[in-house]
Amino acid sequence: MAKIVVLGAGVMGSAFTMPLADNGHRISLVGTHLDDDIIEHIHETRVHPGLRTRLADNVTPYPIVALAGEIKDADLVVLGVNSHGVDWAVRTLSPLMRPDVPVVMVTKGLHGDGQTLSILPHALQQGFPASFRDRLNINAIGGPSIAGELAARRHTCVQVTGKDQGTLDHLAGLLRTPYYHIWTNTDLIGVEVCVAMKNLYALAAGLVIGLLERDGAAENGAAMHNLAAGIFAQGLYETAYLVETLGGQVRSVYTLPGAGDLYVTCLGGRNSRMGRWLGLGLRYEDARAQHMPSDSVEGAMLALAVGPTVEAMVHAGKLDAKHLPLFLHMIDIVCHTASARIPWDAFFA
Amino acid sequence: MAKIVVLGAGVMGSAFTMPLADNGHRISLVGTHLDDDIIEHIHETRVHPGLRTRLADNVTPYPIVALAGEIKDADLVVLGVNSHGVDWAVRTLSPLMRPDVPVVMVTKGLHGDGQTLSILPHALQQGFPASFRDRLNINAIGGPSIAGELAARRHTCVQVTGKDQGTLDHLAGLLRTPYYHIWTNTDLIGVEVCVAMKNLYALAAGLVIGLLERDGAAENGAAMHNLAAGIFAQGLYETAYLVETLGGQVRSVYTLPGAGDLYVTCLGGRNSRMGRWLGLGLRYEDARAQHMPSDSVEGAMLALAVGPTVEAMVHAGKLDAKHLPLFLHMIDIVCHTASARIPWDAFFA
Repeated sequence: MAKIVVLGAGVMGSAFTMPLADNGHRISLVGTHLDDDIIEHIHETRVHPGLRTRLADNVTPYPIVALAGEIKDADLVVLGVNSHGVDWAVRTLSPLMRPDVPVVMVTKGLHGDGQTLSILPHALQQGFPASFRDRLNINAIGGPSIAGELAARRHTCVQVTGKDQGTLDHLAGLLRTPYYHIWTNTDLIGVEVCVAMKNLYALAAGLVIGLLERDGAAENGAAMHNLAAGIFAQGLYETAYLVETLGGQVRSVYTLPGAGDLYVTCLGGRNSRMGRWLGLGLRYEDARAQHMPSDSVEGAMLALAVGPTVEAMVHAGKLDAKHLPLFLHMIDIVCHTASARIPWDAFFA
Repeated sequence: MAKIVVLGAGVMGSAFTMPLADNGHRISLVGTHLDDDIIEHIHETRVHPGLRTRLADNVTPYPIVALAGEIKDADLVVLGVNSHGVDWAVRTLSPLMRPDVPVVMVTKGLHGDGQTLSILPHALQQGFPASFRDRLNINAIGGPSIAGELAARRHTCVQVTGKDQGTLDHLAGLLRTPYYHIWTNTDLIGVEVCVAMKNLYALAAGLVIGLLERDGAAENGAAMHNLAAGIFAQGLYETAYLVETLGGQVRSVYTLPGAGDLYVTCLGGRNSRMGRWLGLGLRYEDARAQHMPSDSVEGAMLALAVGPTVEAMVHAGKLDAKHLPLFLHMIDIVCHTASARIPWDAFFA
């Protein structure tokens, strides 16, 4: 039995407690400073409000002030903050955490410093003090996983990824249940690029929902699935380029982290809903302000977080615009108020 | 302007006339011996009954008896028969066709002779007399393309594939329109394996529809998208193994022929409908007899066509069962009356 601290009580971090709890571990679910209402709700009802699911009895909810006490004897720290919360997590964890305790990031995204793209586990590591940094053992979980389904113990296939196979085997042992199917993958860069980019390409695929609504079905009843599939394939093609450029392996692109996660993300959710508004012709800022002011649209958040960095890398010749027309168009839409206009002729170059 | 003969008046061959006609070519749509009703219907109404679309004025429908007359001055022959019709096509075309006229196959499938798997263009080629065979120029079209959408001139992205880049460029020029986006790919084996296997893996993904219907949504409303995505990813993983084993390139797997075509095929159609019955617990033969007696379910047809060959190749050590657990399970379901039981533990080996 391990003592596990999950930091961040959002849907994904909280759903992740389910297989851990079913394996008999003792879990402290520690909310961030933004999660007080969620923690209070769980404390009173045992139900997570976002997951609409009763958490297991061996999961104890705590507010952020309890972090220091809970983390000191933890065998594993799971980071379930959102992608904006990585800097906060570094500041919060630095004074409290022992560097030899493995970390598993549930958070998805990429980091851009204006000149270079990096995966979140590397950005997290870089944030810690130098003396600490090299001893950190940061891993991540990636693959098609709708949180509500995991919380309902429905079959879910994911990869745990990191640099050390021994750690990955240990983590897989902590996590694996009859419904939570775990594979290990030492291609940390490949997995993290795939699972971050899927949000942006699901936003792009969502455009089709709006385009179809605008134009209607054809006289013979035809929808626009061919168009969505073209965007899906171009998304994976661009992801493969980014993975290889940043040092990852293309195998991650056509398995769970790439194709699997993009598939599930295209089946619905906030990226699709925002994509629909954009496809209907709204500018991103108007769509956000009028229709989704308080939603985290991960694909748009990614474009905002790394757009300037990607553009600078293209300008400096570190990324080839030819291989990223859809990524660059989505950055145009989200960061520069462009309207949706799918760049077919530039696909698959 | 080219003279083009399309042999086979099914939905895909007929939809394919739309971009050809829009480019000003003269098209003879020649039905097979099974297509007389369709040809008669088009002759009387100009509407294709399956596509529910009016064909272009420069498309002329003909019954099979007209083939000899139409093919003698053709610049291109498009083969739109179904996968069972390849042997018939060889017998029919051999005495009539000039070997220097390029062929484009719209037909999808794989051929198994009990010992070896081959792609349909190779099986077609092998069927012709030896003196003829080496001069044949057989190409194919692959990618996510629902026929009704192409017929409605909705954006569609596909690859034309074959061994000769010059021919491919010529064919792309005949086909390309503002809605029919064409790329060329000399990886004929990779494309053909991908577009054949997508039917089988869409049948597998369809199981989830039945499983969800049987078990219902979870208490928190959760469906089974994670499960479908796991199957989707395993399908591409197995496709990559087959592509590489048969001599194709993995790039075809994560672009239009693999990921794109599997995506669109999972969005609906006969494979999904049959998959649902299997997921609900019916044996294949019962599902077919009771619910889909006159439907061509391409994924099941593929399992029947190549199942014994794949099993023989596994037995002979030419294919590794470890990398094909889902393919082998679908063969068990379709050929050996097994019930659906997803082999999670064998995935991604």
